[in-house]
Amino acid sequence: MIIVMKPKASQQSIHAVTNYIENSGLQVHLSQGEEVTIIGIVGDKTRISTENLIIFKDVDRIVPVTESYKLSNRKFHPDATVVKVGNTTIGPGNLTIMAGPCAVETKEQLLEIAKAVKASGATILRGGAYKPRTSPYSFQGLEEEGLRYMQEAKAQTGLSTICEVVSLEAIEAAVKYVDMIQIGARNMQNFILLKEAGQSGLPVLLKRGLCATIDEWLNAAEYIIAEGNPNVVLCERGIRTFETATRNTLDLSAVPVLRNKTHLPVIVDPSHSTGSYKYVAPMAKAAVACDADGLMIEVHNNPACALSDGPQSLTFEKFEKLTAELRPFCGLLGRNF
Amino acid sequence: MIIVMKPKASQQSIHAVTNYIENSGLQVHLSQGEEVTIIGIVGDKTRISTENLIIFKDVDRIVPVTESYKLSNRKFHPDATVVKVGNTTIGPGNLTIMAGPCAVETKEQLLEIAKAVKASGATILRGGAYKPRTSPYSFQGLEEEGLRYMQEAKAQTGLSTICEVVSLEAIEAAVKYVDMIQIGARNMQNFILLKEAGQSGLPVLLKRGLCATIDEWLNAAEYIIAEGNPNVVLCERGIRTFETATRNTLDLSAVPVLRNKTHLPVIVDPSHSTGSYKYVAPMAKAAVACDADGLMIEVHNNPACALSDGPQSLTFEKFEKLTAELRPFCGLLGRNF
Amino acid sequence: MIIVMKPKASQQSIHAVTNYIENSGLQVHLSQGEEVTIIGIVGDKTRISTENLIIFKDVDRIVPVTESYKLSNRKFHPDATVVKVGNTTIGPGNLTIMAGPCAVETKEQLLEIAKAVKASGATILRGGAYKPRTSPYSFQGLEEEGLRYMQEAKAQTGLSTICEVVSLEAIEAAVKYVDMIQIGARNMQNFILLKEAGQSGLPVLLKRGLCATIDEWLNAAEYIIAEGNPNVVLCERGIRTFETATRNTLDLSAVPVLRNKTHLPVIVDPSHSTGSYKYVAPMAKAAVACDADGLMIEVHNNPACALSDGPQSLTFEKFEKLTAELRPFCGLLGRNF
Amino acid sequence: MIIVMKPKASQQSIHAVTNYIENSGLQVHLSQGEEVTIIGIVGDKTRISTENLIIFKDVDRIVPVTESYKLSNRKFHPDATVVKVGNTTIGPGNLTIMAGPCAVETKEQLLEIAKAVKASGATILRGGAYKPRTSPYSFQGLEEEGLRYMQEAKAQTGLSTICEVVSLEAIEAAVKYVDMIQIGARNMQNFILLKEAGQSGLPVLLKRGLCATIDEWLNAAEYIIAEGNPNVVLCERGIRTFETATRNTLDLSAVPVLRNKTHLPVIVDPSHSTGSYKYVAPMAKAAVACDADGLMIEVHNNPACALSDGPQSLTFEKFEKLTAELRPFCGLLGRNF
Repeated sequence: MIIVMKPKASQQSIHAVTNYIENSGLQVHLSQGEEVTIIGIVGDKTRISTENLIIFKDVDRIVPVTESYKLSNRKFHPDATVVKVGNTTIGPGNLTIMAGPCAVETKEQLLEIAKAVKASGATILRGGAYKPRTSPYSFQGLEEEGLRYMQEAKAQTGLSTICEVVSLEAIEAAVKYVDMIQIGARNMQNFILLKEAGQSGLPVLLKRGLCATIDEWLNAAEYIIAEGNPNVVLCERGIRTFETATRNTLDLSAVPVLRNKTHLPVIVDPSHSTGSYKYVAPMAKAAVACDADGLMIEVHNNPACALSDGPQSLTFEKFEKLTAELRPFCGLLGRNF
Repeated sequence: MIIVMKPKASQQSIHAVTNYIENSGLQVHLSQGEEVTIIGIVGDKTRISTENLIIFKDVDRIVPVTESYKLSNRKFHPDATVVKVGNTTIGPGNLTIMAGPCAVETKEQLLEIAKAVKASGATILRGGAYKPRTSPYSFQGLEEEGLRYMQEAKAQTGLSTICEVVSLEAIEAAVKYVDMIQIGARNMQNFILLKEAGQSGLPVLLKRGLCATIDEWLNAAEYIIAEGNPNVVLCERGIRTFETATRNTLDLSAVPVLRNKTHLPVIVDPSHSTGSYKYVAPMAKAAVACDADGLMIEVHNNPACALSDGPQSLTFEKFEKLTAELRPFCGLLGRNF
Repeated sequence: MIIVMKPKASQQSIHAVTNYIENSGLQVHLSQGEEVTIIGIVGDKTRISTENLIIFKDVDRIVPVTESYKLSNRKFHPDATVVKVGNTTIGPGNLTIMAGPCAVETKEQLLEIAKAVKASGATILRGGAYKPRTSPYSFQGLEEEGLRYMQEAKAQTGLSTICEVVSLEAIEAAVKYVDMIQIGARNMQNFILLKEAGQSGLPVLLKRGLCATIDEWLNAAEYIIAEGNPNVVLCERGIRTFETATRNTLDLSAVPVLRNKTHLPVIVDPSHSTGSYKYVAPMAKAAVACDADGLMIEVHNNPACALSDGPQSLTFEKFEKLTAELRPFCGLLGRNF
Repeated sequence: MIIVMKPKASQQSIHAVTNYIENSGLQVHLSQGEEVTIIGIVGDKTRISTENLIIFKDVDRIVPVTESYKLSNRKFHPDATVVKVGNTTIGPGNLTIMAGPCAVETKEQLLEIAKAVKASGATILRGGAYKPRTSPYSFQGLEEEGLRYMQEAKAQTGLSTICEVVSLEAIEAAVKYVDMIQIGARNMQNFILLKEAGQSGLPVLLKRGLCATIDEWLNAAEYIIAEGNPNVVLCERGIRTFETATRNTLDLSAVPVLRNKTHLPVIVDPSHSTGSYKYVAPMAKAAVACDADGLMIEVHNNPACALSDGPQSLTFEKFEKLTAELRPFCGLLGRNF
């Protein structure tokens, strides 16, 4: 933590800051520049609300020099984490594809889709049973019944399964039926849910919030890991910007940035971010090319009749074509698929 | 709902769309322009996933013509809602000031602040007992103990009270101790929590999400009202933009926009939006000038030692000076304060 | 300038940085923390491309501690600047209202509007003769002919005049006819135009770019002042965000932030920022309440037939009502109007 | 153009709108829904300021149904444009790499870099002679002298050349020395410069503005093409968002969106968008994978001493490694490189 004083800050103002710090049991490191004085704090910063120093007289700025997340920070955990989900893994050396419908609608629908995505190379079946919808009048999901269909689909296909959870109740149900739980974008800073996900014992897919910075996202992962659950996978799914040609703006640069900042696996969702089936294939290839560990893709047996997110769902044929095209990319990047 | 076809869309493509609509029991209204054909849908749109029509051949765009929120929509409820909170009200004719610390820290602190903000004209005491914090290592609040202090402060001062809730457990506790609950920005689309807040019976202050559009915000209010609870107050608290000179960007234009779109009261939080005590007074005056129904302002007995958000907290003296300056503004706008 | 090294940076890496700095003739100030080492640079930073240090091994971050703008910086020029425009002034103690049509259309139109806005209290007539339009097929302005009408309107009413310029040619014409030139939002970082405006001798109204940070804006002002022209007025006119209920998001907090960072006067344009006449009056009052030095407001004799920006233009009646309502606000804030 | 009336709009209000349209010589198409009435306009919309209709009584919304750009619109020009630059081409079937220093610094520097990037496969040499810089105190470029070095580098290597222009004067110089001119992000809506670029006769690389929507970008291209110059190449270089981990947010989805909306070639600049050499290689691969027609990459002989943008410049070794890795991607996508 560095405190930058204003030009011509008085000695009295500087002493007020250094006294406050030293009285809190920390040490001070003073650097007198030509224009400004800079005060470094040495010691355990949790003993002091350093942000409050901004209100001291003649203080210009507070500059944090270390990140608040430790467990998810590559600086302290240099080796890449590999997350096991059912009988597949997410991490270096693999390209893991999660595919399935936005919402579980019927058992028949889910089984048909499960077989199709498995045939094309997906290893994890996605399907929403608890749907967070902008309007209270939209379809909200089949809840536990949907989870039972997921279990059935797993039994018939051998696919691992993932389902979004939105409450403790949903987590408690999910633990009984699926292999991985997902925290959606709108709940990325629902800290109660993050803690409960951390305690669930299941691996967690943590989607990025629509307006979350990468550092806030890693702090959210920290909430889960701090509960003793290191099996967190990050999923970039687009951020909110001024551009409306796509539903959100897929921030693919987040993939190499995260590679640099964290040891956790990173996957990309080209379906929700773009909001249109037309853009899913090019953005899926781009995600693989910049070294994502996996993809989450919406596939539907009949997009025109989907109860949720039809416009962005791939048909079986389009999904089959895409995975075929992705294989040689994986070869170039040294990933099994 | 209007479907805009591409220029030179074939008759076959147009028929595919109109057949689909008519087969769903709805009527079609065709408009052949010089460049493009436009298809209007007449009837109950809940019978069809109209968004899916975008994937039909030669469809260019889907344009919704009505909002999805009805209960919070001024078009259907022209009269302004007045929300009663303990023995004060929020709505036309009043300027309601909610003030208090970001976090409840001790009983003594809360009582001292409660007396001071009451003396300066606040009628509702705010104080956080459940704190959603970006980092798991920051102070997370006193929880139910904090709520008991709020009850005590009410007993001693007669102020009404408000506290943020982050879970069903917190709501169940809040119902016992305070007069109004708050849904924070990070939970604005935690739809489970919105429903539970709607069932609580208490009036609800709904803060705008950091990247929520005004329409999404009104859909969130719809979730609460749809549970039978019409007592919703909206609170603008800044949105996330590229500008970093303030913590967030206070979108004051939202006040007249909401006045136009909804009958619900609107208040403004100049503390969280700007993130600095220096900007609270000018933005509070601006909020009153553009006709907000109230303000939420953080006040602390000793900002330098606040456990949360010290930099944006006003001292008692600054708060007293601000409310004194606000009185003549209220006079100009015909509001009691 | 501070260089923050990574945790466990080697002595060799630290030496590489300090050597590079010292070899450039600057001094180094080393601060060894518990987790990280911090290197301060003392001396004239223009001698070195400090940003490049980020590519040195084990460097984590470069933190600038001083702003790059000096002439527009309040830290070095504490007294508020007053800008004289024709026979009126912009700065402390006054509320200056600039009003008029978006585009000059005909001589009769301009004269009629000029008389009306003068009667309601405006002291500067605005009118666009060079219109930067998104589409090449929209009306682009009357150019020099429009400027001549501005001169005629000044002769008949005594109003001072302002016109946007988009090129050196436009500046050369404007110097002959009007009292102040405006650099529009889209040209805020057209550095050639900024330099030419600085050399024109006329006071300059510098609008904020749609995605310009406040610091970039002050750097743009620096370009003008560095040419020897200190008469710069800043105009907040909304920034681009995800919200579409208004054309742009008026960042009113920029007014107190600028008051803190610069000595230049600040005015607000509630017409372009909101894009709707309905929101002009409340946002104009809010701007005055947070202590803006003036307003720029679009007024048209017949908004339904305006060639540009009709939806946001006030009629004469609405403008008269607004200025009448603004007078008591000015009284509260100690400004003449 | 569609006008959506408010629910319960009076017949009088509807007639006011239809009369206004019909009096302008256009036809009206009325559609009476259950909730709202919709009015379509048929005919040449340039005869009427349709946006002004929003101020008519009971009008709720104006919905444009056609884009304002025609010449750059794929709907009217389905075949992909191929742009010839010196002796290379940009368009389908090729991957064109433009590489070189951010700023031309000395003749020796430029020649050394030109030879290196040619050896690695670049076919166009980039180098800035006119530098738009945020601060007036930063290096502003060698101007015409820099252009002469570009000409010399072309003579020695056979590379085609591109240079950014910032004024008519710069365009007039560029025409003498280089093969293509670039309009930078900050000048994307400098409409005077766009027209002058259109008249220059040289192919134009048009970078996306930091906060430009894709539709505004295509309108900017329309300005150039409308001057009789069809040789426009679009360059995605990142947009401004709240995320600060990269300098800007590279909007790669813009590549397939543009493919859909326009016939113009699209290239990607991973250097300026990310601002860090570490992220250039993964984002370059991602750009190629989503089918960009080319790349613009900054390469420097000694990044630590670059006068501009050192942190994002690749060394010769890194650039050589990157182009080698890109070759098999080009094979997969059917592009020569």
